[in-house]
Amino acid sequence: MLLEKIQSPDDVKRLSRDELKTLAAEVRTHLIAKLSAHGGHCGPNLGMVEATIALHVVFRSPEDKIVFDVSHQSYVHKMLTGRVSAFTEAAHYDDVSGYTEPSESEHDHFIIGHTSTSVSLAGGLAKGRDLVGGKENVIAVIGDGSLSGGEALEGLDWAAELGTNFIIVVNDNQMSIAENHGGLYANLAELRRTKGQATNNLFRAMGLDYLYVDEGNDVDALIEAFEQVKDADHPVVVHIRTLKGMGYALAEADQERWHWTMPFDIATGELQYTPSGEDYNTLTAVHLLQRMKHDANVCAITAGTPGIWGWTPERRLEAAGQFVDVGIAEEHAVALASGMAKRGAQPVVGVCSSFLQRAYDQVSQDLCINNNPATLLVLWGSLTSMTDVTHLCHFDIPLLSGIPNLVYLAPTNREEYLAMLDWSLSYREHPVAIRVPVGPTQPASRDVPQDFSSLNQYEVVLRGEQVAVLALGNFFGLGESVCRLLRAQGVEATLINPRYITGLDEALLHSLTADHRVVVTLEDGALEGGFGEKIARFYGPTAMRTLCYGARKAFVDRYDPQAFLAENRLVDTLIASDVIEALRC
Amino acid sequence: MLLEKIQSPDDVKRLSRDELKTLAAEVRTHLIAKLSAHGGHCGPNLGMVEATIALHVVFRSPEDKIVFDVSHQSYVHKMLTGRVSAFTEAAHYDDVSGYTEPSESEHDHFIIGHTSTSVSLAGGLAKGRDLVGGKENVIAVIGDGSLSGGEALEGLDWAAELGTNFIIVVNDNQMSIAENHGGLYANLAELRRTKGQATNNLFRAMGLDYLYVDEGNDVDALIEAFEQVKDADHPVVVHIRTLKGMGYALAEADQERWHWTMPFDIATGELQYTPSGEDYNTLTAVHLLQRMKHDANVCAITAGTPGIWGWTPERRLEAAGQFVDVGIAEEHAVALASGMAKRGAQPVVGVCSSFLQRAYDQVSQDLCINNNPATLLVLWGSLTSMTDVTHLCHFDIPLLSGIPNLVYLAPTNREEYLAMLDWSLSYREHPVAIRVPVGPTQPASRDVPQDFSSLNQYEVVLRGEQVAVLALGNFFGLGESVCRLLRAQGVEATLINPRYITGLDEALLHSLTADHRVVVTLEDGALEGGFGEKIARFYGPTAMRTLCYGARKAFVDRYDPQAFLAENRLVDTLIASDVIEALRC
Repeated sequence: MLLEKIQSPDDVKRLSRDELKTLAAEVRTHLIAKLSAHGGHCGPNLGMVEATIALHVVFRSPEDKIVFDVSHQSYVHKMLTGRVSAFTEAAHYDDVSGYTEPSESEHDHFIIGHTSTSVSLAGGLAKGRDLVGGKENVIAVIGDGSLSGGEALEGLDWAAELGTNFIIVVNDNQMSIAENHGGLYANLAELRRTKGQATNNLFRAMGLDYLYVDEGNDVDALIEAFEQVKDADHPVVVHIRTLKGMGYALAEADQERWHWTMPFDIATGELQYTPSGEDYNTLTAVHLLQRMKHDANVCAITAGTPGIWGWTPERRLEAAGQFVDVGIAEEHAVALASGMAKRGAQPVVGVCSSFLQRAYDQVSQDLCINNNPATLLVLWGSLTSMTDVTHLCHFDIPLLSGIPNLVYLAPTNREEYLAMLDWSLSYREHPVAIRVPVGPTQPASRDVPQDFSSLNQYEVVLRGEQVAVLALGNFFGLGESVCRLLRAQGVEATLINPRYITGLDEALLHSLTADHRVVVTLEDGALEGGFGEKIARFYGPTAMRTLCYGARKAFVDRYDPQAFLAENRLVDTLIASDVIEALRC
Repeated sequence: MLLEKIQSPDDVKRLSRDELKTLAAEVRTHLIAKLSAHGGHCGPNLGMVEATIALHVVFRSPEDKIVFDVSHQSYVHKMLTGRVSAFTEAAHYDDVSGYTEPSESEHDHFIIGHTSTSVSLAGGLAKGRDLVGGKENVIAVIGDGSLSGGEALEGLDWAAELGTNFIIVVNDNQMSIAENHGGLYANLAELRRTKGQATNNLFRAMGLDYLYVDEGNDVDALIEAFEQVKDADHPVVVHIRTLKGMGYALAEADQERWHWTMPFDIATGELQYTPSGEDYNTLTAVHLLQRMKHDANVCAITAGTPGIWGWTPERRLEAAGQFVDVGIAEEHAVALASGMAKRGAQPVVGVCSSFLQRAYDQVSQDLCINNNPATLLVLWGSLTSMTDVTHLCHFDIPLLSGIPNLVYLAPTNREEYLAMLDWSLSYREHPVAIRVPVGPTQPASRDVPQDFSSLNQYEVVLRGEQVAVLALGNFFGLGESVCRLLRAQGVEATLINPRYITGLDEALLHSLTADHRVVVTLEDGALEGGFGEKIARFYGPTAMRTLCYGARKAFVDRYDPQAFLAENRLVDTLIASDVIEALRC
């Protein structure tokens, strides 16, 4: 096997053209094998096999610097830069991250997990080179849907002014996670149709030189193209047409399904483990689709990630014009919703907590200053949902809870969530965000109100004394558990479901000072700037002791969720013991 | 005078073509008169006189909806929609905001102050119309530099998919606040040169229909163009060439100077009031320019706002390749800096607190996860610097202080600021942000260290007992004042300069529990998610009473800074009296 002998790009360079093709086949076989056992990004990497080989044949990494956008398409790059065992030996599968990671290799320059960043980051390497002094090539790889992101377009627009070496490889696999959206993709199609000859050319219109490669899965054609632009003295785009999922028939045939996959059977494509039971994501799409049938004004909006909240191709088809995928463009998604709400529609933007970060200013300015009644569904907001450092969903509470006019709700069960969602669609006073619970749906064990218009009224689930536990959203169950443990020790604690992240129930909090000495806050997110700190500030001038639980400030990567919770004392027994200790003071 | 009789767009529609030209002249005269007495956005409005008149002749506002980007070019629109007295009568100058404001008029649809948002917001109105049912025209006006912003490009890309009526007027005045930057402006130049005939066309490449108007300051040509696209059944761009500052010779000649102006003498252009003394903005540019002369790796980066931190055209020229204006593109600016720092350069991004909001995800992901040692200068971060709701500089502390890896510093005087800036350039462990003080420079009254590498070590300026005042950045003087008042009442308080916004000096804070009962935090920003809450959480489990001072959560608009501070009890006497009260508990 050739692949086993590839310790560095130099070993790739030594291979004959025929051997490179053999190498490509071996890479693909091992990619599929690892993915079938381990899961990961499938289609994007299968499509980039030849391009990555050609990049390493032509350029001299790490002196020449290759920056992969999103970097979920960097598996092949890792295989060719000293990390092959992480793809060929099951025992080493977890040795590498799913993204580029400078601590793994000098061939990786950035940790990248959000899309549309490679042109700007690589542009910085190029400008830095020009200042510091250097002659290397800088190559940004972008594509797989991320061209539509504002940061990428800002970067492309700027690149023209650099005036020195900068190579931008556009991996045009005709897909995003789902199908592509946006006018620029029609231009890419026209460029493909005309083999790059169309007079109307987005990249040239941005001031960039341009080269088209029709055979983006042909090593020879790619090497020729890269040789042509190597050491270019100006910025140039190399537009390569590739096939997402290439070499695995199932992935070629259903590209959305195979963008990212859990472990599967290679022959049939069946998942080794199929999640059973109802989850909040599917529940959301099913529920909204039902609402749409009765109300033409309801409209779901996604920024390129329909699947993460249950919008399968079938459901999107059913929703028709009431489902809008704006492509990877979170800023636009939020501003669009603001405009739609202003015009009387009932837009619902579903966005992963981590990606919501890209639209902070739009939430603040376009939506909340204008106080337009759109609904934001914040998906996966939790310490345990996503464990890659680039996809942490820890920060949405600090991010949103300080924005005036916004009502941010934390439901604690299935019925409460649906009641909040329905209420938000008819509420016209403020924009509403809902932190969609994570995990399997939990049925309500208490009555759930249908109207949340009396803002910041917390639900007192148990009225006790001495200790009050404010258990927010996903951590309501943890709060119940803590109260049970305290009861076993003779403390009848008050249990509160705060419901509202964005405001304090001051009357209730004040009333607690009469017969409570300790208040505990539990939140499934970062502590800094979060919900607990607002409670701590409220009680700051009083004798009340406050204990805030959440995650300490840190970027953590590929962590074990349960161990992480324990490190942060987010465990019922630890919290109960802290409370007993605090009562002794 | 025709203008006096314009109570609504219907009155504009009734005028003859000749009268419209007279009206344009009258509008311009009154614009200049008000601006000379009141200050405001000059060049952008002077250039948009004819286009605004033509829009109101052709379209039927408010049924047809016109959305102005940035909306600092909406003065003429206000004059034609029932608010003329706010431009013709000095007593009414302050009746209107400097931006569109739905509470003023049904002809305004959004409060807009940040750039690059009109296409997305108006796109939402159009999509909402299609869902709710309606036939009106929706018109987005964009230009004056804001095309390069990611949100605008995302919006343009999406617009092509709308498939129904949507008119995007690109006001091409060949300028941003300063000169334009980015490859797309070369394309606009080519389109102007060829009178819109160039085969390479950014807008067509984005999938949009396109119409060019060379005489963008000619009412007849504009009316003809708008008539042509009125009721279009698909999205179309109308690219109009205008002259920024038109009709005021000084503003035509120096467009950057006259983008926005304080009150001036019409004949000479001289400002009625010239700020004297040194300010932190000029100090920054002068200091960095000096550093650049000795170090080719130092590079200043702005996203279209060089002037707000002292980068005059002369200084930019002097800095040459060591000054980069990326155009209005904050996301790109931050990611670019991360890449430059990675490659060994010393980039310094200067960005207004309010606009930094547009780059939260880039600060978190591109910069801080990668832990690249760039410097961010956060300008104007204060409750008293900007009082328009769209430009509040209240939120940068909550925004940045929860991001791991970032060191956010709050200098309290001139020398401390420069020492921090110099230190940040050589520090390679983490990215550093500095909250540049506001107002005239304050000389140091104490020794200032040159090295801040021992993170989170607060400076104890006065060691007292009972009460400790943590006076952050701009509010250090307020803290001194509070301590003086307390001393007069027999309380020798401890005065602390925290320096580090992003971390707690836990040893110091813990030591205070021995002989202090009350801790006061003072911050010149929003309370929610801010510095004080971290202190309140730290002391939550203890007997220490904490009093946090800053601004309550609210979007406030055109407020009196001193009254606002008083409403938030940010007054030395009020704070001292609260402390005395707290000591009695």
